[in-house]
Amino acid sequence: MARREETDQEAAAPPTHRPATNVPVLGVGMVGYAFMGAAHSQGWRTAGHVFDLPMRPALAAICGRDRAAVDAAAARHGWAAAETDWRALIARDDVQLVDICTPGDSHAEIAIAALAAGKHVLCEKPLANTVAEAEAMTEAAERAAARGQVAMVGFNYRRVPAIAYARQLIAEGRIGTLRHVRAAYLQDWLVDPESPLTWRLERERAGSGALGDLGAHIVDLAQYLAGEPLVGVSAVSETFVRERPRLAGPSAGLSGAADTIARGAVTVDDAALFTGRLASGALASFEATRMAAGRKNALRLEINGERGSLAFDLERLNELSFHDHTEPAATAGFRRVLVTEPQHPYLEAWWPPGHALGYEHTFVHQARDLVRTIAEGAAPAPSFADGLQVQRVLAAVEESAEKNSVHTPVVL
Amino acid sequence: MARREETDQEAAAPPTHRPATNVPVLGVGMVGYAFMGAAHSQGWRTAGHVFDLPMRPALAAICGRDRAAVDAAAARHGWAAAETDWRALIARDDVQLVDICTPGDSHAEIAIAALAAGKHVLCEKPLANTVAEAEAMTEAAERAAARGQVAMVGFNYRRVPAIAYARQLIAEGRIGTLRHVRAAYLQDWLVDPESPLTWRLERERAGSGALGDLGAHIVDLAQYLAGEPLVGVSAVSETFVRERPRLAGPSAGLSGAADTIARGAVTVDDAALFTGRLASGALASFEATRMAAGRKNALRLEINGERGSLAFDLERLNELSFHDHTEPAATAGFRRVLVTEPQHPYLEAWWPPGHALGYEHTFVHQARDLVRTIAEGAAPAPSFADGLQVQRVLAAVEESAEKNSVHTPVVL
Amino acid sequence: MARREETDQEAAAPPTHRPATNVPVLGVGMVGYAFMGAAHSQGWRTAGHVFDLPMRPALAAICGRDRAAVDAAAARHGWAAAETDWRALIARDDVQLVDICTPGDSHAEIAIAALAAGKHVLCEKPLANTVAEAEAMTEAAERAAARGQVAMVGFNYRRVPAIAYARQLIAEGRIGTLRHVRAAYLQDWLVDPESPLTWRLERERAGSGALGDLGAHIVDLAQYLAGEPLVGVSAVSETFVRERPRLAGPSAGLSGAADTIARGAVTVDDAALFTGRLASGALASFEATRMAAGRKNALRLEINGERGSLAFDLERLNELSFHDHTEPAATAGFRRVLVTEPQHPYLEAWWPPGHALGYEHTFVHQARDLVRTIAEGAAPAPSFADGLQVQRVLAAVEESAEKNSVHTPVVL
Amino acid sequence: MARREETDQEAAAPPTHRPATNVPVLGVGMVGYAFMGAAHSQGWRTAGHVFDLPMRPALAAICGRDRAAVDAAAARHGWAAAETDWRALIARDDVQLVDICTPGDSHAEIAIAALAAGKHVLCEKPLANTVAEAEAMTEAAERAAARGQVAMVGFNYRRVPAIAYARQLIAEGRIGTLRHVRAAYLQDWLVDPESPLTWRLERERAGSGALGDLGAHIVDLAQYLAGEPLVGVSAVSETFVRERPRLAGPSAGLSGAADTIARGAVTVDDAALFTGRLASGALASFEATRMAAGRKNALRLEINGERGSLAFDLERLNELSFHDHTEPAATAGFRRVLVTEPQHPYLEAWWPPGHALGYEHTFVHQARDLVRTIAEGAAPAPSFADGLQVQRVLAAVEESAEKNSVHTPVVL
Repeated sequence: MARREETDQEAAAPPTHRPATNVPVLGVGMVGYAFMGAAHSQGWRTAGHVFDLPMRPALAAICGRDRAAVDAAAARHGWAAAETDWRALIARDDVQLVDICTPGDSHAEIAIAALAAGKHVLCEKPLANTVAEAEAMTEAAERAAARGQVAMVGFNYRRVPAIAYARQLIAEGRIGTLRHVRAAYLQDWLVDPESPLTWRLERERAGSGALGDLGAHIVDLAQYLAGEPLVGVSAVSETFVRERPRLAGPSAGLSGAADTIARGAVTVDDAALFTGRLASGALASFEATRMAAGRKNALRLEINGERGSLAFDLERLNELSFHDHTEPAATAGFRRVLVTEPQHPYLEAWWPPGHALGYEHTFVHQARDLVRTIAEGAAPAPSFADGLQVQRVLAAVEESAEKNSVHTPVVL
Repeated sequence: MARREETDQEAAAPPTHRPATNVPVLGVGMVGYAFMGAAHSQGWRTAGHVFDLPMRPALAAICGRDRAAVDAAAARHGWAAAETDWRALIARDDVQLVDICTPGDSHAEIAIAALAAGKHVLCEKPLANTVAEAEAMTEAAERAAARGQVAMVGFNYRRVPAIAYARQLIAEGRIGTLRHVRAAYLQDWLVDPESPLTWRLERERAGSGALGDLGAHIVDLAQYLAGEPLVGVSAVSETFVRERPRLAGPSAGLSGAADTIARGAVTVDDAALFTGRLASGALASFEATRMAAGRKNALRLEINGERGSLAFDLERLNELSFHDHTEPAATAGFRRVLVTEPQHPYLEAWWPPGHALGYEHTFVHQARDLVRTIAEGAAPAPSFADGLQVQRVLAAVEESAEKNSVHTPVVL
Repeated sequence: MARREETDQEAAAPPTHRPATNVPVLGVGMVGYAFMGAAHSQGWRTAGHVFDLPMRPALAAICGRDRAAVDAAAARHGWAAAETDWRALIARDDVQLVDICTPGDSHAEIAIAALAAGKHVLCEKPLANTVAEAEAMTEAAERAAARGQVAMVGFNYRRVPAIAYARQLIAEGRIGTLRHVRAAYLQDWLVDPESPLTWRLERERAGSGALGDLGAHIVDLAQYLAGEPLVGVSAVSETFVRERPRLAGPSAGLSGAADTIARGAVTVDDAALFTGRLASGALASFEATRMAAGRKNALRLEINGERGSLAFDLERLNELSFHDHTEPAATAGFRRVLVTEPQHPYLEAWWPPGHALGYEHTFVHQARDLVRTIAEGAAPAPSFADGLQVQRVLAAVEESAEKNSVHTPVVL
Repeated sequence: MARREETDQEAAAPPTHRPATNVPVLGVGMVGYAFMGAAHSQGWRTAGHVFDLPMRPALAAICGRDRAAVDAAAARHGWAAAETDWRALIARDDVQLVDICTPGDSHAEIAIAALAAGKHVLCEKPLANTVAEAEAMTEAAERAAARGQVAMVGFNYRRVPAIAYARQLIAEGRIGTLRHVRAAYLQDWLVDPESPLTWRLERERAGSGALGDLGAHIVDLAQYLAGEPLVGVSAVSETFVRERPRLAGPSAGLSGAADTIARGAVTVDDAALFTGRLASGALASFEATRMAAGRKNALRLEINGERGSLAFDLERLNELSFHDHTEPAATAGFRRVLVTEPQHPYLEAWWPPGHALGYEHTFVHQARDLVRTIAEGAAPAPSFADGLQVQRVLAAVEESAEKNSVHTPVVL
């Protein structure tokens, strides 16, 4: 025990939070069970035990094509049932919310079908691999909204408390008129040229490379924090390593010769850099790469305004740097705010000040926010329309990169 | 989605981890449901969904004196049943492990009874409020060990991956002969003199103040990391604010007059500082305080040896600073190691590199380690004997502080 | 006294460094005496007392138009004589080196005249306000080089030990094939819209704004560190505050009315952002701004290669971050190298490890390097040709910004 | 050029600072020319070119026993004359101030003689090797003060702008009632057991080891910052490496056999740790060591009060961390103040914000302050009495370490 709880056996005050009994159940059905599936499962399992929720999420069913694998995933992650056909999952009566954690090429089909079936939908980002798909999804979401259904896109980093708090400070005017947004998402898992060719490096499956995987996050966050859209971009992108070894398939081991490992073409970008203008005239810069040796998960944001600045790095996700430019110069400086106070977003339900949260908490928070949105019949944020808008920015980035970096407007 | 999972619906490899089905159940009964209760609950709920465990922890029953409160806590935290008498909890057939999260004055009675009843025990730190109690508990634990029972003390910070990895580096000799251990645990929740008088500020309940609450952690960690005990200490302690307002009881509001708020004496230390010698002759310094304005949870460790140094701060719990003194001077320097690689302790089961863990993960890891210890019939670490040894250090600290700081040997 | 000197009165070893007697004098004549003049003076006064130099710099004469002011500056900064006409300065027999610290619009005329007069020249950056001027200067420098004269451009940040050491590590291949160069120079002294209109905000005098003032440094450093030129850029720039109050002239106070303060147009950029490609195909990003609230002198560089990465921030100029990607992942991380070891560039002559250098040391180092270049008859680095190449990059940036950010090749 | 100077040839405002002409000369005579001699020389040479001083320091004469070495040092460091007998130096008419940079065992004799000869004195720290010597020096200083002479002790770190500014904030009450002072001075140059035996490791010459060399600084700074003295201490010290190779003398190379290198006993401490109480009741901790691998010059200070906290590390000497505890918790945090604003102590005369100062600037500032003190006939700070008080603390530390760490009062 290391802190200030006051309650104990003898003098127990009633717990602050109401227990989540006697509230309706929200049955969740999840498609996909890899990295995102594990993270979403953690979110669904935990949210109701930490936050006061108006509905109780139940892990009703999980879906994957391989029977043995999906059964194992269900057992591992705590799902009550397992399906091998996502259409069957959608059809289940105990599923009211479909959570889509598959690669981007299947998002549109599953999401549109789920909405048509009257289900709420949470769809991982990027919303789709093409603007056309994202448009269709957004139309479906808008039709469904009229029927009371919620469709949210999974930009989980909006739920990092430091980022949510940054948004709050900006909305309150603490930064003043914005001048600069600086956003980068740097990883290094493709630095090694022998790192294998996976679906993430194939255009047909992933849509794009670092741009869609990492760039989508920072485009969303830049616009979310600024409270305004990008109106145009100028971009350059590159694939530094153009061939990589294919992952061995079932028969790959037969030849036994290392020199016969097949290589395949990398058809997505390793890195994308772009500048942009926000609607207010502020300048923005973006960089997404998986080739920045030593940077593991460096999602960095810096925002400069006329009254102050904010800075954030996902590798230190409990911290927000805040400079108040209205202070006397002699005592001004970037403050390292530990975003772990009860006044901070999401923190009312967690640990005492200074006790760190981690990556997966974003999914717990996402579950909280989505359940509340559904229960309240509120408009989701980020909506599919928000996801579409990010896709349009990414499309403008790709167009600019193809057209010699010329400034390319974002379609409204 | 932001990283390298390779699996998806179409091409799903079987999950790395075996599902936790077909393994025996380990029924957990927890006493106490405040801060530590919430944290332990999170650990028990999550461990089996993340790690491959040889037994499946079940949240069988929770115990607290107040019926309404304990029922609410059970619902909130996911416990199947609730008891209002810890003796009844111990007696339950579905409880094989008793997890004690109460204030220190009740640890001995509950732990000894649970061990006598044939249960495994996890006891929060500090092990007890007095050395005598801790000795009795250790004797009980040793008797029970002969019957195959496990008794572990809850020094959860040993389960921070960065700290576990630091221990590994030291055990491998990467730091060489130790010269200095520098340990501090700084918090600030008592800076305000109007912060109320809780059980943590009363000697009868808490045993001591910052010393037992925070100092116990850093004494345990210093000895754990060094791999050797403290042999003597010299100490000073202080209570800066000697009276504080009492927490209002049920009738406190009747008078309506703010000036009639009763004040009570603080009977524990606000801060304790001590130096010490480790068995090898290395020097150590310790500071535990709840009066360090701006430090929220700054458990800082620094260890200097003949071949290198390590540094850690719990406010940045995913990072370990490592200086390799055998490197050429021109390229040497403290490295910021993000302890999120699959090779790091506990990380085989979590997220990709760079994705942060948080405070509560220490309880998930504690649950993992305890379940494995029980299943394997292994010796627990830290054992009650380890907890007793920490108590003896704390007793020597108190004795030295009373005796004008004179160097006081730690009883072996 | 806080460190390891071994020498003392009784047991004095001869000093490591030979005294700078019996070496030829190098008479310096400096034009300009503002910020740069003060910094250069400090460099000329100090270099010979710290480093072993083959010539002894003498502060022969300083030049400025205002007699009283230049006399005061001469006394303040230790110059033996003062001139009010730079042609007179150049003509002096006791001046062998002309050090040009004036605004960019006078660089070409003075430098070309000085070279024609047979003098060595050190010219502050940016080399000139236009490519045409820089070309003429470079031609003059090349003609003079044939006569044994040296012409160097004052990119002083190459002389920060951490940057010089970074270049050394890159040249040794410690970073491997380059992938990314990230360069920003962020200041905040124009955040306040009431900050006055100075010559630095007028195109005729300053040539450009943040681009020439700050961007020139990071373009030079990026190319210096990479060891290769930029081949093309795509740029955007902005003037956020388009009018500012004019600095009061001699009669400005007569009206006495605050509301009659004249405003004038800002004719240079407040900020410029650009992306670029290096000859090897590596991607680069650049940002120069004087509107980043809270960033005082944040010249940041980060370079990622296939074998490692480097990072630097001028606000912590004694530190270099180095990640060695060939290390085992478990112990890898960015090291904070204190660039204060005797093995580091320029450090052989300064203080013991850990004793910080400051901004002005770059001018001491520049003086050292220039004196040695002159004495050895070596080729200067950076040369006027290097300064011209930077001007060409800046010209391409301006052209791209005018042409809708289209990728614009740098003229070779 | 990278910043905001406004002045140039055409539109030169008179320089802010008056030139240092027409002011009396203050002739300085320095004894010793090793590390401290070089640093002090830099201070004397530079102060008058940067600050407005009421007297102009002249580097009149330097003194050392070895004629060739002292002549070389004079030439190197810019001294007009060289003496081999410190009595001759004191006797010189052109010397009004004697600057003592020798080891501690000669401080008393030289300082007392210089004061007796009517000279001002600056004496390096620690003031003396024994309390008795320091008392005699203080008495001499007090007698001399009556005659208008100034005697100052060289605790140069008081002149680090961040530390001077910390003192100012504390004096203004921004930290409130003090609770904790945490001071450490960590270096690593004795980690290697083969590092040779120098005079600094011999008690007769150095007085003590890390305690006098490093501990004296942090004791002085703790008391200076707190504005109150230590009243008692409890200490432990250690010599980890008890024998080291002797530095080879003139004939050492004759034997030619590496195995015959003589070893000698280290007779001073490698490390000293102590706790203490300030007069107000605040607790303090101190650690001085030369065995902290990777710490090059880590003089760290942290001060916690009821209204805020300050933290400093000499390895980042331009930064001061300041936490204002009166702010709302949600935006509070340690600010990284770059102590480079014109409002900060000593900064009125240096570079624009964000342009770093270095170690040697402390000696320039010391020269400034001492010249002003002499010209104004003011009381010096720190005085010899302050140096004596530090010696008494160090003596109490040594006594406590010998007496089993018992709390030992500091003699008033």
